Amino acid sequence: MNTLDFKNFDKIKEECGVFGIFSNEENLDVARLTNFGLFALQHRGQDACGIAINDNGTIVYHKNLGTVPEVFDDVVLNHLSGQIAVGHVRAATAASNSRENAQPLVTKYVKGTLTLALNGTLVNARSLREELEQSGALFQGTTDTEILAYLIAKERLFTHSVEDAITNMVGKLEGAYSFVVMSPSKLIGVRDPKGMKPLCLGKYKNSYVIASESVAFDAINAEFVRDIEPGEMVVITKDGIESKRVAPKCDTALCIFEHVYFARPDSVIDGASVYEARKEAGRYLARQKPVDADVVIAAPDSGISAAIGYSQESGIPYEVGLMKNRYIARTFIQPTQEMRENAVRIKLNALKSVVSGKRVILIDDSIVRGTTSKRVVALLREAGATEVHMRISSPAFLFPCYFGTDVGSQDVLVAVNRSVEEINELIGSDSLDYLTLENLLKTPVGSKCNFCTACFDGNYPLDVSEVSKAGDFKDVHFIKKLHIEK
Amino acid sequence: MNTLDFKNFDKIKEECGVFGIFSNEENLDVARLTNFGLFALQHRGQDACGIAINDNGTIVYHKNLGTVPEVFDDVVLNHLSGQIAVGHVRAATAASNSRENAQPLVTKYVKGTLTLALNGTLVNARSLREELEQSGALFQGTTDTEILAYLIAKERLFTHSVEDAITNMVGKLEGAYSFVVMSPSKLIGVRDPKGMKPLCLGKYKNSYVIASESVAFDAINAEFVRDIEPGEMVVITKDGIESKRVAPKCDTALCIFEHVYFARPDSVIDGASVYEARKEAGRYLARQKPVDADVVIAAPDSGISAAIGYSQESGIPYEVGLMKNRYIARTFIQPTQEMRENAVRIKLNALKSVVSGKRVILIDDSIVRGTTSKRVVALLREAGATEVHMRISSPAFLFPCYFGTDVGSQDVLVAVNRSVEEINELIGSDSLDYLTLENLLKTPVGSKCNFCTACFDGNYPLDVSEVSKAGDFKDVHFIKKLHIEK
Amino acid sequence: MNTLDFKNFDKIKEECGVFGIFSNEENLDVARLTNFGLFALQHRGQDACGIAINDNGTIVYHKNLGTVPEVFDDVVLNHLSGQIAVGHVRAATAASNSRENAQPLVTKYVKGTLTLALNGTLVNARSLREELEQSGALFQGTTDTEILAYLIAKERLFTHSVEDAITNMVGKLEGAYSFVVMSPSKLIGVRDPKGMKPLCLGKYKNSYVIASESVAFDAINAEFVRDIEPGEMVVITKDGIESKRVAPKCDTALCIFEHVYFARPDSVIDGASVYEARKEAGRYLARQKPVDADVVIAAPDSGISAAIGYSQESGIPYEVGLMKNRYIARTFIQPTQEMRENAVRIKLNALKSVVSGKRVILIDDSIVRGTTSKRVVALLREAGATEVHMRISSPAFLFPCYFGTDVGSQDVLVAVNRSVEEINELIGSDSLDYLTLENLLKTPVGSKCNFCTACFDGNYPLDVSEVSKAGDFKDVHFIKKLHIEK
Amino acid sequence: MNTLDFKNFDKIKEECGVFGIFSNEENLDVARLTNFGLFALQHRGQDACGIAINDNGTIVYHKNLGTVPEVFDDVVLNHLSGQIAVGHVRAATAASNSRENAQPLVTKYVKGTLTLALNGTLVNARSLREELEQSGALFQGTTDTEILAYLIAKERLFTHSVEDAITNMVGKLEGAYSFVVMSPSKLIGVRDPKGMKPLCLGKYKNSYVIASESVAFDAINAEFVRDIEPGEMVVITKDGIESKRVAPKCDTALCIFEHVYFARPDSVIDGASVYEARKEAGRYLARQKPVDADVVIAAPDSGISAAIGYSQESGIPYEVGLMKNRYIARTFIQPTQEMRENAVRIKLNALKSVVSGKRVILIDDSIVRGTTSKRVVALLREAGATEVHMRISSPAFLFPCYFGTDVGSQDVLVAVNRSVEEINELIGSDSLDYLTLENLLKTPVGSKCNFCTACFDGNYPLDVSEVSKAGDFKDVHFIKKLHIEK
Repeated sequence: MNTLDFKNFDKIKEECGVFGIFSNEENLDVARLTNFGLFALQHRGQDACGIAINDNGTIVYHKNLGTVPEVFDDVVLNHLSGQIAVGHVRAATAASNSRENAQPLVTKYVKGTLTLALNGTLVNARSLREELEQSGALFQGTTDTEILAYLIAKERLFTHSVEDAITNMVGKLEGAYSFVVMSPSKLIGVRDPKGMKPLCLGKYKNSYVIASESVAFDAINAEFVRDIEPGEMVVITKDGIESKRVAPKCDTALCIFEHVYFARPDSVIDGASVYEARKEAGRYLARQKPVDADVVIAAPDSGISAAIGYSQESGIPYEVGLMKNRYIARTFIQPTQEMRENAVRIKLNALKSVVSGKRVILIDDSIVRGTTSKRVVALLREAGATEVHMRISSPAFLFPCYFGTDVGSQDVLVAVNRSVEEINELIGSDSLDYLTLENLLKTPVGSKCNFCTACFDGNYPLDVSEVSKAGDFKDVHFIKKLHIEK
Repeated sequence: MNTLDFKNFDKIKEECGVFGIFSNEENLDVARLTNFGLFALQHRGQDACGIAINDNGTIVYHKNLGTVPEVFDDVVLNHLSGQIAVGHVRAATAASNSRENAQPLVTKYVKGTLTLALNGTLVNARSLREELEQSGALFQGTTDTEILAYLIAKERLFTHSVEDAITNMVGKLEGAYSFVVMSPSKLIGVRDPKGMKPLCLGKYKNSYVIASESVAFDAINAEFVRDIEPGEMVVITKDGIESKRVAPKCDTALCIFEHVYFARPDSVIDGASVYEARKEAGRYLARQKPVDADVVIAAPDSGISAAIGYSQESGIPYEVGLMKNRYIARTFIQPTQEMRENAVRIKLNALKSVVSGKRVILIDDSIVRGTTSKRVVALLREAGATEVHMRISSPAFLFPCYFGTDVGSQDVLVAVNRSVEEINELIGSDSLDYLTLENLLKTPVGSKCNFCTACFDGNYPLDVSEVSKAGDFKDVHFIKKLHIEK
Repeated sequence: MNTLDFKNFDKIKEECGVFGIFSNEENLDVARLTNFGLFALQHRGQDACGIAINDNGTIVYHKNLGTVPEVFDDVVLNHLSGQIAVGHVRAATAASNSRENAQPLVTKYVKGTLTLALNGTLVNARSLREELEQSGALFQGTTDTEILAYLIAKERLFTHSVEDAITNMVGKLEGAYSFVVMSPSKLIGVRDPKGMKPLCLGKYKNSYVIASESVAFDAINAEFVRDIEPGEMVVITKDGIESKRVAPKCDTALCIFEHVYFARPDSVIDGASVYEARKEAGRYLARQKPVDADVVIAAPDSGISAAIGYSQESGIPYEVGLMKNRYIARTFIQPTQEMRENAVRIKLNALKSVVSGKRVILIDDSIVRGTTSKRVVALLREAGATEVHMRISSPAFLFPCYFGTDVGSQDVLVAVNRSVEEINELIGSDSLDYLTLENLLKTPVGSKCNFCTACFDGNYPLDVSEVSKAGDFKDVHFIKKLHIEK
Repeated sequence: MNTLDFKNFDKIKEECGVFGIFSNEENLDVARLTNFGLFALQHRGQDACGIAINDNGTIVYHKNLGTVPEVFDDVVLNHLSGQIAVGHVRAATAASNSRENAQPLVTKYVKGTLTLALNGTLVNARSLREELEQSGALFQGTTDTEILAYLIAKERLFTHSVEDAITNMVGKLEGAYSFVVMSPSKLIGVRDPKGMKPLCLGKYKNSYVIASESVAFDAINAEFVRDIEPGEMVVITKDGIESKRVAPKCDTALCIFEHVYFARPDSVIDGASVYEARKEAGRYLARQKPVDADVVIAAPDSGISAAIGYSQESGIPYEVGLMKNRYIARTFIQPTQEMRENAVRIKLNALKSVVSGKRVILIDDSIVRGTTSKRVVALLREAGATEVHMRISSPAFLFPCYFGTDVGSQDVLVAVNRSVEEINELIGSDSLDYLTLENLLKTPVGSKCNFCTACFDGNYPLDVSEVSKAGDFKDVHFIKKLHIEK
């Protein structure tokens, strides 16, 4: 690690959150509600965000690189008034982190304005893009959202409504996605047939709200109505709400990592509490491979819920053993040569009074490259821990994800071609245990969905032959386009 | 005038300048050459600018709101390396002044990247846009450039080269335009069949350069080769340059206002020196309606050349009678209530020693609303001028322009429905004279082109029925899209 | 609450952190070490920060409004090289939040450069300032740091060293403070005679480091050497370190609120672990007024340590019952009218699965105005809590603090003139208990200092007659000076 | 020239302009009036600016690096309300171009607030500064303004009014300066005993105005009352205006370069019109060394007035032979290697139609290093000029200026140790002539002041032994202080 990214220490990135609201009140401040909804979804993406408002057919929007509070202030929000709003937060790879790729995508097509905000990824993006180009399409950015917009525009020529166009389009998409569409008079939310990305429906007074996670409703004091079902489209107009199926019911495959890491602990997805699922994971870990120890601590913040569960199950006291610096930074400061090996301590600090002379159980949600885990274990030992037992609240990461998370090729995954014991040695812990997949699947108690576990077992719920064959499976362009921000 | 725009006092705005370069040298810094070329074209648009570079098929670009020195610095330019570059400066109306509309437009289409920079306007934009939407097109901005890009993308499906696609497209365009296109391996420049917008060809060492005006070549020490002809396309590749006709020869109609005001005095357009044309206009004015006076002064800067011509013809000494504040400002500061009537003096100051007790001839290039002229005349009288004789180096502005300048409806034009004597009374001068159209047409000595004089006589060289019928002839969207810059 | 300050919900603000380093290595990157040290002290002030470096007698510095990662990036840090560095993070009141007040204060005086960074406040600032003005002093900002600099400059005229000047000066100061001084060849750290503000000494390889809290050493992997004693001055030169007393030993009075709230849990102050002190407070609370309940939860983040202690003592399970949005924002967004009452939920969210149907014990560190507590209790009830028992890990706040914290007059303090039962009713909890002062004083186990408890019992360790008489006790200017940031 | 400074091509920099207003009206917008006054004085300094307003004893101010329109906008101006205002524009050397050095200087001293804006330089700054440091003074910036403020603060202790303090202070100053002071209830303007820097008095309705040049009054439609006399202090209070002498009358020595280059042509200084003085210089040049030629052209903008005078005297027609790019830029873009020799053409372009085949007389105001002149002559020859005769409207620059202009040591001055013929050869002109000092002194017709001509003849009107002995005569600090702007 030559430079220091304060935000991400060896963590997988989720790829976006969406929000939509259709006002049925007089003078509802849909822009501020969207702003606060997006702020609650900020954990799903901190690289760019945007809000587009439909004011009687005219779209006013603002989007930029940055977090919600960086991009929006009172001056901007005061200019955003209207009746329907769509918002987006984005997690980007370095290559794609340009203003052009910020969402919502606002376009004009044959039937007026068409605004989209997408969470997810298509696995047949390349062929769809090529097919569209073969019919004269132009792409100005590199997100899949443009593909959806084009397909809707094409389908709309032969259908009677934007809903029909969307339904036809969904038939052509292969991917894990949820999206909201704003037409001149409608707000539409769609979840992919397998429900791989979450999407839910809420009600704010008499107005309907759509969001990636239920916490967005909590933030604005909206009522959670229900999850949008896999393969369902909800269409909100001034006449109310309608539900349609855009795909026949099939096996569902919600990304299990929503429960492991992506979603906020206070969200409830498809009926299962994320916090309880994580605590449950901790409980299973305590039973899987018991160890004699003095304290249970968490890798903050992602390991906290599981550590509490582990403590409750094992009876070993839960303590704050690692302190995290809360002052999130966008900038990358290069640490000094002397500090490089210890760069992790800029973000994390071990509490000597908690770990010194103690046998420590350290709970984390996952290990990607293993470099951070190794450094954290070293940090605990320096602080006097006599033993460090690492427990991971998910199975080993063995297969790449093609569905919109930032996990690259197998080359970077520490668990590929290594036994648990080898990893244990590599990171320097006294013992290591991963949650079994079998146990993990039992943690989202009450879930109405089944799960995608491809990153653990390679069972992809979609045909990934197109993306997996690519040299760099994330880049569907043989010609790249960069944007320099000044 | 409630707020004070330091940049524009009652002036018509030109709508853009373009620049392109194709390197045939090793390590030619095409980005800096484009930067300096655009800086020389800055008078054609100060609202936005951009540069896109083709580096072996990859496009790297930067564009933003602001002037060339505001948008580009060494850090940005250092990131822009490649072999082909396209640049653009933009003058925008308030409504369209968004980052989305900044050019060059960079897109990916069926044959790779397609980059466009356009100076001009289509008069059949609405019908072209609707036709494209009928085939599934999406528009993300409100400029005509997207229309061109789509048409090229469509035509390219059925043609063997981007040149052929452009040739077919030109057949569908009605408008006044010049544009440059950058494909993965070519730089192409096209001037509309009537040559309404200028475009010329230069040579920098062994590399070819294209620009809206010859001053861009002077700035980088490139050699002026020739004007690109109306209806001509030049195609520059590594194998050299080729010229093709994209339209049969027809009557030409270069915008006469390029000579009156738009172009820089040091430019030479279609063989005629702009400075000499303006001086010639001053000479004709001196002969048209002689007046006994002590000094000839100019409304700076646009009246200077004509005032020198007038002085030389009349023998009345030329003096600096009005001083202009050179510190151009983007911001609009509201003057105090007390100052409002005299706001013009923030930008202009009369030299008492020059005008006090003198009979003054004031030369300006044109009068739009008349409000500024009235204030300048008052300023001169306050400074002690005993007489102020106004001379305008172009005819009265009577008809709207649909070809990419910022002259609105006839409602704002002071000369519509007013005699010269009425205008003279309105602005408070002792006498007023406009250059006759007949004389004006004689001023661009040596011009190889005829001229569009529609704003003076209503003889539009193109069919403007589509745009002139529109309520607001500039807006082809029934649905508007705004962008809030933060 | 009409606007929404994401950063501070009814919290007391600490007023600064200081850092200093004197390099005894070749090419030590003192700027980056200071940057990371300040980043670890960021919790002590997020309004402004700065770093000044002494490069062989020349001072190079950068300071501005904002957090450490906002103000410093690699480009700035690369320009800051030298052998001695002083850094500062600042918490400001709205009135004083100007660039002029950012520290370190860099000045030139009779013996060369004099750079100061101060944590704390003088209670005799007004009379010192007036006395200095009476001798011709000028003040350019409103911080007490200028007073210290002037006094040193004055004393230096009659003393043989800057140390002697500082010693003389300390004799004139009445206040709670720690500061670092950088002279052309020395780094000096001073802690006030009563040790009211913390300051400690560390070692990085062969170089000495001074910081407000030990966490700054952890962040750069420096070794903690010891706390600087109340009334001690340490002088670091190339010849090593020297300790001198600047005041005779006396009763010490470290601000007890460092343990309650200000300091980071992973800091150790005067021998006592902050985390353990807070846990101990939770344990005492559990014993003070036991209550039958199902879960113990914390008001994040300040109540977490005490809640864990409470849980361990009572045996009632600790859970995450309130989730905090981690995306700190500087901007104040006005919530919609409808949301105003519930604005707290933008920052905090209750976990239904944890509190629904449960009797909840909520631990917080303090109550200032009571408004936030009331809203949090309501939030928990809405989420289904059947009972909410509030436990506060410090006594009731009854007296203003004059020593550099942002607690205003008694008017805002909810506990003034209200019984515990009245406050319980006001905030809507089922029961309420404050930690007794007697118990609080037992929590910093191992502390070598006694404590200032003035905010709880009115026993001020210093004569506060000068500041307490002032209408606004914080403003020593009868003439105010504001700075508008653009 | 490795980098390209768009602003300054081998030009001397003036070091500031000042403005002050004392309102006697209800609700006079003194901030906007000051803003527009400073905008008119912008040519005197573009590096930093500021406005401080006294609102019934409270000072509100804003200052920053940048031009007036860059630093002030409507939002900032709306926050600046009050009855007395002081403003400043600053030209800085690279080393001193920090926010800390921006003026006005706002301080608090024994009698309340003290605000200063200074144009000029002290030649005894070093000894005054040392003397002040010997009495305990601290300096936070590197401008002489702090010295003045300290001296006033010191003197005020023993005097009955700020006027008396200022009078005493002036007795200690050696230098060329004008300044305005704002006390809690007074606006005071002072011009140095020799009147080396200009300062004048105006009236806006019933309110008094002070400014460096009369153009500031023209900009706000204020009436020019009179020049403030050398050694005069004007004191403006609510009771009206009073004039006092702060020094006995003596030989005056207004900087002659105000007429040659610094001041705006539309200013009138001490009774002499700058425009007429420059024209007169042109007339003398025409008589001094007549030459047969076809056109007279100016190096824009500084040579325009003299070129018109030359043309009128010689009968050779005046033409625009060099066009200047008006889009002023702060940024320095490094030209490409190929362009370096011709970098001047980015700013200037020769008009071929004017100079081709012509014998050209080129008028400029001065030559500093000679590099730019050489390039301009080459530019004209490339454009076809058959002869280029250079005429300079001031004598050769032979001695350094110690009075606040940016002319460095004699090393850089091309005329030192070179005959006129040698310079002619060096810059490549066909003939060269400088205006004689005798003639120059005749050009400011009607001037009530004598002139400082030290840069031409070495006759310094003040004792410059202190500054001329210094290694670097501009730096009075043996310890430097830099500020990094981010």
